[in-house]
Amino acid sequence: MKVVALAGGVGGAKLADGLAQILEADKFKVIVNTGDDFDHFGLRICPDLDTVCYTLAGLANLETGWGRKNETWNAFESMDELGGPTWFRLGDRDLGTHLERTRLLAEGSSLSEVTARFCRSWGIKSSVLPMSDAHIPTRVYTDQGEMAFQEYFVQYACQPQVSGFAFVGVETAQPAPGVLDAIRDADILVICPSNPWVSIDPILAVPGIKEAIYSESNRLRVIAVSPIISGQAVKGPAAKMYHELGLQPSALNVAKHYGARSNAGLLTGFVFDEQDVDQDAEIAGLGIRTLVINTLMRSKADRNRLAGEVVAFGRSLTGG
Amino acid sequence: MKVVALAGGVGGAKLADGLAQILEADKFKVIVNTGDDFDHFGLRICPDLDTVCYTLAGLANLETGWGRKNETWNAFESMDELGGPTWFRLGDRDLGTHLERTRLLAEGSSLSEVTARFCRSWGIKSSVLPMSDAHIPTRVYTDQGEMAFQEYFVQYACQPQVSGFAFVGVETAQPAPGVLDAIRDADILVICPSNPWVSIDPILAVPGIKEAIYSESNRLRVIAVSPIISGQAVKGPAAKMYHELGLQPSALNVAKHYGARSNAGLLTGFVFDEQDVDQDAEIAGLGIRTLVINTLMRSKADRNRLAGEVVAFGRSLTGG
Repeated sequence: MKVVALAGGVGGAKLADGLAQILEADKFKVIVNTGDDFDHFGLRICPDLDTVCYTLAGLANLETGWGRKNETWNAFESMDELGGPTWFRLGDRDLGTHLERTRLLAEGSSLSEVTARFCRSWGIKSSVLPMSDAHIPTRVYTDQGEMAFQEYFVQYACQPQVSGFAFVGVETAQPAPGVLDAIRDADILVICPSNPWVSIDPILAVPGIKEAIYSESNRLRVIAVSPIISGQAVKGPAAKMYHELGLQPSALNVAKHYGARSNAGLLTGFVFDEQDVDQDAEIAGLGIRTLVINTLMRSKADRNRLAGEVVAFGRSLTGG
Repeated sequence: MKVVALAGGVGGAKLADGLAQILEADKFKVIVNTGDDFDHFGLRICPDLDTVCYTLAGLANLETGWGRKNETWNAFESMDELGGPTWFRLGDRDLGTHLERTRLLAEGSSLSEVTARFCRSWGIKSSVLPMSDAHIPTRVYTDQGEMAFQEYFVQYACQPQVSGFAFVGVETAQPAPGVLDAIRDADILVICPSNPWVSIDPILAVPGIKEAIYSESNRLRVIAVSPIISGQAVKGPAAKMYHELGLQPSALNVAKHYGARSNAGLLTGFVFDEQDVDQDAEIAGLGIRTLVINTLMRSKADRNRLAGEVVAFGRSLTGG
């Protein structure tokens, strides 16, 4: 069984890590959102991509959910002393990543080449693919105006009320090399418990990616894992966004967001938390096979367990 | 007595620090070489300017002669793990300076505005002026080809044999705001014990600077302090450059490099080390007043002592 995952953010990184742990390296690839990439201090910063890579490499800071473990903050403090902007915290070890990525990009390397190179250095055996080598910045429409994603997410701490999103330049962007093949080769596509609007939708918006998912309809099982548990997001603004967009944050509404494959949507199967078992009939009623289990990932063992259950669920389904 | 100094490198930073210590803040300004500025990892790095500022602020690493004290290297190590270039070592605290400078320059601030802002943050009361807001990169002609200054200085560790220098774009550059006024207002101009070719000549090559020195000929005393002691440079490649350019490294040849004011050159006075007292008659014979003292600056007290002696020497001279 070959598995490809779509991921962004901490929940996505955790499940991707579980999948990387339980699957052979050549049987697992993860396609990562880059819509939250931005330039800061002249450096190209790719938070979702780095979170996935740091997590797979065992370098992630498990306490904060972002950045690196054993981190120091001397560059940031020195910059702060000079009156620079402190809304986006940059650790010293993390800065090394941004410095070398920025240098390689300026030399003409693509983001996917840089990512592959970094993964080799970090000992990551699974393929980590940015969704695109093009810069496709997510813009957030809010009651305080339109803003860049990191502005919304970090600088404004998700406080503005969102009304919509745009993925700038996505119409003319191409998937990064390997992305379409990874989808076409896969038996199971896992949509990780990431924010549907700002982590997964940017990936799905890249021309060709949805088409690749549909083109293998007879084989590919598409399974999403709900990032919403008991009406709340484990981390991040997903539940808040649901409310602001006029929807109840629920597993059901996550399933509806992606839609049933049998009804022109994406999903063959849907995995959600046992706390939401009361929604099972209604989700199944959409024409989606369901798996109701404990989906919380608190420990490394939780990641592997959830990954194992998702893959076993996928095996049990008929493709398409 | 108002004093302006021309400086670059460690020796220049040390004497500038001595002058800043013994003179009132509004009586001392230092004009710094920026010909060694370069871009690395997308960041604008100004080694001479930072060495002067760190030294004046008490932040300099006295052991290495470059960078900051209490420095850590985590960003650099993280970048090194990714296979990035390690020839130019970047400390974490030092990186904070480059990050914020790069950000402010990209926002449209000039290098002199950024420098003034940083000096305020660091508690530096004397004015530190980059020679120009324009980027005037020094190129070094060597037996291994033409190269950027930091390439020669750091990457190749000054090993190539030099045959000449170019200051790219200097013809159309302007002195930074305040530079010409600092020279016109001064009673004494001190050419610090910096490398004549790659620290001082880039400053003197900026259009308007030599003219400002000459325009005040009736008042301004121009005093150079020899960076060569007993045929050797205290630090850096100055002596090696002399040899490669076919000249004996000596106090005499430093004096000849700048020339006597009385003979269409710059110098009213020349300060050199007592180890070279045998050259006194010949230097005086150029038409330059001499001061032969201990010029080595090993301690902070040495800096202040040398600064005091240079200023006293300047007072004793007649301008022009």
